[in-house]
Amino acid sequence: MTRIALTGREVQLTAYPSGEVRPSDFRIVEKDVREPGPGEVLVRNTWTSVDAGLRLRLREKGPEGYFVAFPLDAPMEGIMTVGEIVGSRAAGFEQGDTVWHASGWREYAVVKAGEQALAGLGTLTRLDTDLAPPQAYLGVLGGNGLTAYAGLFRVGELRDGDVVWVSAAAGAVGSLVAQMAKIRGHYVVGSAGSSDKVRYLLDELGLDAAFNYKDGPLPELLRQAAPDGIDLYFDNVGGDHLQAALGALRPWGRVTMCGAISDYDAATPAPGPSNLFQAVANNLTLRGFRGSAHLDMMGDMQRDIGRWLRDGKIRYVETVVEGLENAPEALARLMRGETTGKTLVRI
Amino acid sequence: MTRIALTGREVQLTAYPSGEVRPSDFRIVEKDVREPGPGEVLVRNTWTSVDAGLRLRLREKGPEGYFVAFPLDAPMEGIMTVGEIVGSRAAGFEQGDTVWHASGWREYAVVKAGEQALAGLGTLTRLDTDLAPPQAYLGVLGGNGLTAYAGLFRVGELRDGDVVWVSAAAGAVGSLVAQMAKIRGHYVVGSAGSSDKVRYLLDELGLDAAFNYKDGPLPELLRQAAPDGIDLYFDNVGGDHLQAALGALRPWGRVTMCGAISDYDAATPAPGPSNLFQAVANNLTLRGFRGSAHLDMMGDMQRDIGRWLRDGKIRYVETVVEGLENAPEALARLMRGETTGKTLVRI
Repeated sequence: MTRIALTGREVQLTAYPSGEVRPSDFRIVEKDVREPGPGEVLVRNTWTSVDAGLRLRLREKGPEGYFVAFPLDAPMEGIMTVGEIVGSRAAGFEQGDTVWHASGWREYAVVKAGEQALAGLGTLTRLDTDLAPPQAYLGVLGGNGLTAYAGLFRVGELRDGDVVWVSAAAGAVGSLVAQMAKIRGHYVVGSAGSSDKVRYLLDELGLDAAFNYKDGPLPELLRQAAPDGIDLYFDNVGGDHLQAALGALRPWGRVTMCGAISDYDAATPAPGPSNLFQAVANNLTLRGFRGSAHLDMMGDMQRDIGRWLRDGKIRYVETVVEGLENAPEALARLMRGETTGKTLVRI
Repeated sequence: MTRIALTGREVQLTAYPSGEVRPSDFRIVEKDVREPGPGEVLVRNTWTSVDAGLRLRLREKGPEGYFVAFPLDAPMEGIMTVGEIVGSRAAGFEQGDTVWHASGWREYAVVKAGEQALAGLGTLTRLDTDLAPPQAYLGVLGGNGLTAYAGLFRVGELRDGDVVWVSAAAGAVGSLVAQMAKIRGHYVVGSAGSSDKVRYLLDELGLDAAFNYKDGPLPELLRQAAPDGIDLYFDNVGGDHLQAALGALRPWGRVTMCGAISDYDAATPAPGPSNLFQAVANNLTLRGFRGSAHLDMMGDMQRDIGRWLRDGKIRYVETVVEGLENAPEALARLMRGETTGKTLVRI
């Protein structure tokens, strides 16, 4: 596996965007690719992930306790990607293996086997491509699947009879949460930001009710969709969505706080809901979480979601952007709500 | 038990206060007291309770799902009180029994045995005055004790090694929470609104650290008191206190949302914390609750707190206001932070 002068492109951040993500805050750099050392593999990346959570790392100072900021003019470490091993000096990994790891947004990566990344989620792992195509492991069978699965069943403690509202329900995580709640027989309301997405939720995913949050005051839209209130709110949005949920939750209701995309572009954080006292009045639980905190459920998730995929009970869509150089634009589109399902870059 | 022309005074609300509670929004009415009917008892009330939660019922429209507003110019139902039975037509209750019930802020009350009030908490109940004096059942052995006990052990899921912060720690609930956490061996920080109260927390209750929240920026005061962060925040205050807690909570931390006195006088609700995203980043749980939702723990609470009282491990102080006519002023003082421990009116 001797190679001469192998080079590969990678995306680097050149400035922290203020407000909306701009592709002009990134650049493409062509770099030499070194040979893998002992215990390392060389991966040619084929697909790389685009997630709302990345926006939180495009800040000089991110939310405390969250992922650290990406450095400027340097590789962006900690983005999930899949690829094919083109050279291996690590036991258990061979040329031709399809793997995931956390050195995405670049064409080639040298990865050390066993080294933890993204709190363990991004550790080099061989993937079963008989079960699903490689890029599914960046979405439905990867971090998004784990986040949806742990968030609904463990964090949200889904209970018999729960009426469930999922925001950003046409997104990578939301669409899985909504479908799994349907599989379990629940009344499920989904919200999204366009009439196309609402149609997708109703016609393709079979939700009981869905609305476009831009169509009116949220509390009113939610009341029409769930006239008797809700028991579980799966929050991908925060802000006014969380406020509406607190007003609609019945006693002993729960909020699964997965993300707050409405606030990610803000230079200064928006105030929280003014009706948080509802939690006291109605014995509510709000629980935040990160999928990577529930890695122990990865096996269960891949088994269950894998079965539901085979049985046609879970559908997923991907928004595929072609070419590494378009990764920043893909993130910008995701943040503007222009993508559906999992957003991916094909390298 | 024939009586002629028995009359008694009661407090009525004449206008909903805007902003701070004003005694001028109340009046004292002298009324005929009727004989108890079948299944009823006549109680001469001796002590009546003053709670921050009452403020929430002095609004034409309270927080949804919470107690309904008190009507104007009518008896204020649903305030805990203790007294002595002076006439009984209810099986199991006799003249001379000391009882609690939920028709406080008046001298005499006719109460139906078995009838639920305050979500069950205020159902007519005979009290064991060998264990503690009657008024203790309005505080440490009653609703406050239950709220503290359920809030710390069940809602807050107190865990070995937790660093605990209690706000309004010199109050009726907070002082119990702080002491119980100390009994269990935790590092406990208390905050309050005067240097006298801080001294009480340190010298009398033996907390590990305490501060006056008026002495500086809350996050800084909290950092000095708990340099390595906290694991459990018992929230009686809301607002800036909750925001400071979210910034200091370590991974898997919890917030027990018991009340939000900082917001009770506000005509329009204040915005919530702008750093709620910390819950996502650090896998935090925020859980609101009402003591009355945990009535099943009343027996355990009275057994445990009763034992700690006998063993001198729990202390409590009372702010006693003399005379029914001063009940509104007692509430106003409590809301201004001028009372310590349980606030009571001796009738």
